[in-house]
Amino acid sequence: MRTSIATVSLSGSLTEKLTAAARAGFDGVEIFENDLLASPLTPEEIRARCADLGLGIDLYQPMRDMEAVPAGEFARTLRRARAKFALMNRLGADLVLVCSSVSPLAEDDDALAAQQLYELADLAQDFGIRVAYEALAWGRHVSTYDHAWHIVETAGHPALGTCLDSFHILSRSRGPKDLEGIADIPGEKIFFLQLADAPLPAMDVLQWSRHHRRFPGQGGFDVAGLLRHVLRAGYDGPLSLEVFNDVFRQAEAGPTAVDARRSLLLLQEEAGLGALPAPVVPTGVAFAELVTPDAEPVSALLGSLGFARTARHRGKPVELWEQGEARVLVNTGPALPHTRLRASGGTPTDGTRLAAVGLESPDPAAAARRAEALLAPVLPRRRAAGDAPLDAVAAPDGTELFLCATHRPGLPDWRADFEDLAGTPAPGAAVRIDHLSLTQPWHHFDEAVLFHRGVLGLDAQESVDVADPYGLLRSRAVSTADGGVRIPLTVGAAPADATAHARHIALATDDVVAAARRFTEAGGRLLPIPANYYDDLAARYEFADGELETYRELGILYDRDAHGEFRHCYTHTVGRVFFELVQRDGGYRGYGAVNAPVRLAAQHAAR
Amino acid sequence: MRTSIATVSLSGSLTEKLTAAARAGFDGVEIFENDLLASPLTPEEIRARCADLGLGIDLYQPMRDMEAVPAGEFARTLRRARAKFALMNRLGADLVLVCSSVSPLAEDDDALAAQQLYELADLAQDFGIRVAYEALAWGRHVSTYDHAWHIVETAGHPALGTCLDSFHILSRSRGPKDLEGIADIPGEKIFFLQLADAPLPAMDVLQWSRHHRRFPGQGGFDVAGLLRHVLRAGYDGPLSLEVFNDVFRQAEAGPTAVDARRSLLLLQEEAGLGALPAPVVPTGVAFAELVTPDAEPVSALLGSLGFARTARHRGKPVELWEQGEARVLVNTGPALPHTRLRASGGTPTDGTRLAAVGLESPDPAAAARRAEALLAPVLPRRRAAGDAPLDAVAAPDGTELFLCATHRPGLPDWRADFEDLAGTPAPGAAVRIDHLSLTQPWHHFDEAVLFHRGVLGLDAQESVDVADPYGLLRSRAVSTADGGVRIPLTVGAAPADATAHARHIALATDDVVAAARRFTEAGGRLLPIPANYYDDLAARYEFADGELETYRELGILYDRDAHGEFRHCYTHTVGRVFFELVQRDGGYRGYGAVNAPVRLAAQHAAR
Repeated sequence: MRTSIATVSLSGSLTEKLTAAARAGFDGVEIFENDLLASPLTPEEIRARCADLGLGIDLYQPMRDMEAVPAGEFARTLRRARAKFALMNRLGADLVLVCSSVSPLAEDDDALAAQQLYELADLAQDFGIRVAYEALAWGRHVSTYDHAWHIVETAGHPALGTCLDSFHILSRSRGPKDLEGIADIPGEKIFFLQLADAPLPAMDVLQWSRHHRRFPGQGGFDVAGLLRHVLRAGYDGPLSLEVFNDVFRQAEAGPTAVDARRSLLLLQEEAGLGALPAPVVPTGVAFAELVTPDAEPVSALLGSLGFARTARHRGKPVELWEQGEARVLVNTGPALPHTRLRASGGTPTDGTRLAAVGLESPDPAAAARRAEALLAPVLPRRRAAGDAPLDAVAAPDGTELFLCATHRPGLPDWRADFEDLAGTPAPGAAVRIDHLSLTQPWHHFDEAVLFHRGVLGLDAQESVDVADPYGLLRSRAVSTADGGVRIPLTVGAAPADATAHARHIALATDDVVAAARRFTEAGGRLLPIPANYYDDLAARYEFADGELETYRELGILYDRDAHGEFRHCYTHTVGRVFFELVQRDGGYRGYGAVNAPVRLAAQHAAR
Repeated sequence: MRTSIATVSLSGSLTEKLTAAARAGFDGVEIFENDLLASPLTPEEIRARCADLGLGIDLYQPMRDMEAVPAGEFARTLRRARAKFALMNRLGADLVLVCSSVSPLAEDDDALAAQQLYELADLAQDFGIRVAYEALAWGRHVSTYDHAWHIVETAGHPALGTCLDSFHILSRSRGPKDLEGIADIPGEKIFFLQLADAPLPAMDVLQWSRHHRRFPGQGGFDVAGLLRHVLRAGYDGPLSLEVFNDVFRQAEAGPTAVDARRSLLLLQEEAGLGALPAPVVPTGVAFAELVTPDAEPVSALLGSLGFARTARHRGKPVELWEQGEARVLVNTGPALPHTRLRASGGTPTDGTRLAAVGLESPDPAAAARRAEALLAPVLPRRRAAGDAPLDAVAAPDGTELFLCATHRPGLPDWRADFEDLAGTPAPGAAVRIDHLSLTQPWHHFDEAVLFHRGVLGLDAQESVDVADPYGLLRSRAVSTADGGVRIPLTVGAAPADATAHARHIALATDDVVAAARRFTEAGGRLLPIPANYYDDLAARYEFADGELETYRELGILYDRDAHGEFRHCYTHTVGRVFFELVQRDGGYRGYGAVNAPVRLAAQHAAR
């Protein structure tokens, strides 16, 4: 039989995946939308590449959340489908996968599902395309193959068939009897067969217990609630951590033990025991500090971004660059001994790197006392005679966190250690630092989240998975309630991957288009984003005239959430650091994670 | 409150764990039995080390499967407990954890459980020890904290209390109401509190689908059964692999694609499609080949083991060493170009390594045809003029597999390429190669198992987890039904760990004690095994007079399964290779996995 493989099953860029599939002797591929969006090749070029390699494009996927939706939503669905069918014509693909809906908008109405799938198939037929409808195991109303087939049968359109997927069928199967209905489906209505195996059992409580325990505060249990019950019983013995965890088994014991005890200190605080100094939540980012062996490329980049060199440290080779409330220190001195980064992977210490962060603190000394009580190494104050005392602690990844005050009466001002340079800064478009993305060594991700929550009093958002071409990244942001401080912490699967481990500084602007133009006119290079990405945006959203063309020209990415909109673009990378220009409107809360796979692929391609 | 941490929560040797816990400021530790067994320190030395570090030993654990068992079994339980209480006196630990039984022997009888725990506590009291009884979430009859407390209350012994564990309680909890019973337990009867968090949900079908799919034949689904149903329906479209897998996302695309297509070829064969050459199951190990830059240490080791240098290759710098049916080639030539090992981690190519295996095949040419059809790289035949043709393929990890015949009429004999050396070998104690342990690069473990099953026709055993001090190893053996070929494939968590990545050759003997003595008398060094291990053996099994003392003296390990007994010991390591001497009796089927943590710890300590 003909053999095919989904591009999502292989690592790398789309081109690398196609080459690997062809060399292994596959006849065709399923192209995943994300692989196409992230590719710099046009659909016609992808088609030609496949033809050269002797590969057919057997399936394009996926279309999601299409069926059994209210009429207004279905009109938008058809609009999106039309764009995708046109794309498939360019690709030379004639079969599209539609997964059963997981949308809360979907109704439990087989007749409506059949009717809308009929209309979709009718539209597809005009493009010479067939539609394969598949039940996801976690579909909202349709989750079994026989249910999906029943809807396809009811619809009765020649361009509509079903797709069977061994994972979705077998993950729900309670025995061979469940499979007997398959033989009753006419073979010609089974448009596609997807195969995957999976380990059994998925995860039982024993596996969960033996491999995936965490320290209190690093999982989803209410351990403090339990502790309160135990204290109420009158228990006064030890609080003992018994954590079976595959990662802790291989991580260096010293830092793990510190992480462990910090978790117990925070647990006791949460349960009303112990007396830690109260949290002092930072109110903003005072500065980000880049350490670099060569200030030239960094200075050029900062200049293009609209930063001006405004001051120089009185005693050390550190320059201050400013723009609005955004401040970047450029340190060309030797790396300080305490900034050692974990050997277990993480940002390498060579080249330009984001090594320190100044956090605006209402009470720097009190914030440092809490950090010290929570076992954060307090760093020797870097001061020459006359310097302002400056409280700083090391985060688990070695990043220096300065707890400081800028121009605030009654508090030592770190800015006072800097001597102003002549000249007034030209007004740039950035107004402040929106967020700082700090990649983490992979052994210590949960530790880093707990540190930032517990020591700095930041809130942790949900963890999100981000597909990098060469592995999956996990990202979890910590921030203040008002967004004054936002720090996405990210960990990559492959410790050796320099692209996935670069850190970045995101600058807030009121007008990202103006900022991007200003940057390129000043000689800066924005990360080029593939055209396919914009074709997809056009299918998903309606934009004002010319808006999308501007984004396409500049490489601006777009996202939307329940609160507002997000527009952002990226500079080229210097050493291990790049910048992002962002425009948040209407209370958008995220970081454009949906666009991260496209950005990461573009960064890999730009290397 | 006093804080404590279980040694299992930290990485490293027991000494490293204790030091890390003390430095982080913990007051005490729970000592896990396995950490003690693997430690070269005596209990008194461990006690002194803890005292020096200011650590209390708050708990010793675990005792398992103690309660509600038949009388004969309980007598053995008390015997084992007495030995452990004596050990705890030496350690200075006065609290022991007893987990609710998971044994199939345990009866669902709370009164019996209470009575036996009473007797156990009474015995403990004689040693000044208290017993904390805890409900495991997966206990056979007792799995909730209130059930465990009910039994403790019924027993009513002053030296008996309960241990609460947040994981076992919260992993089963459906809401805060479930915790309310805790406050009703008298505080002084809660002897201990163990804390751990864990991510929620453990794993739902979505996570399972998005991260843990495998290629067909690498998981637990009956994918071939499903395929037969689909074929019965008349489907004749593509077989397409759609596999979401975190590891494949980062592994090199080329080998993954080959692995993928091999899985489809095997699937089609299993479903009755396609026409692969039939499997030719090897019948034994013809030889193991070591490649080394320096033959001296290897020759010395082989000599001590009783091997004799019997022949030399006519055209290449390869020597044959023999003993009974065990044959080892020592190759001092340059590494062949096709023996490249995967860059993604695995056996490094420097130093002495186990690089090739000769498998005795009933039909070498047919075996090679199947391997080639299943995409195994066929290696250029290494032959000089006059050499016997020799079929060889590369396994996924780069190991060369020679499909060959030794002294069998009608088949080319690889042995004929070797020129006999003068002298007759002294009779050694080894009779043949029992098994070959081949460590694997971590990205490709499932691929290796499928390769050995599918290409060579070997059977795969269950996968087992083995705790190395610096991470968890996974091991899965492939073998023939009669044990003529046995290959445990092992993958380590930490790619950089040389100890966990050493391969070994296990030699079968009829008398491991005699073989071990012969080896040491010939100047060989056996791996020293800690005394604590033998104290535990004495508590678990009864041995003939003097037997255990002999094992202790030589470093012989012991295991038993439903079929028979296993005795084994290890040589020191040369480069990346060591030898094992094994004695299998009564049809024992395993590889002594229960002893692997002790062996690995000893090897780390010996470095």
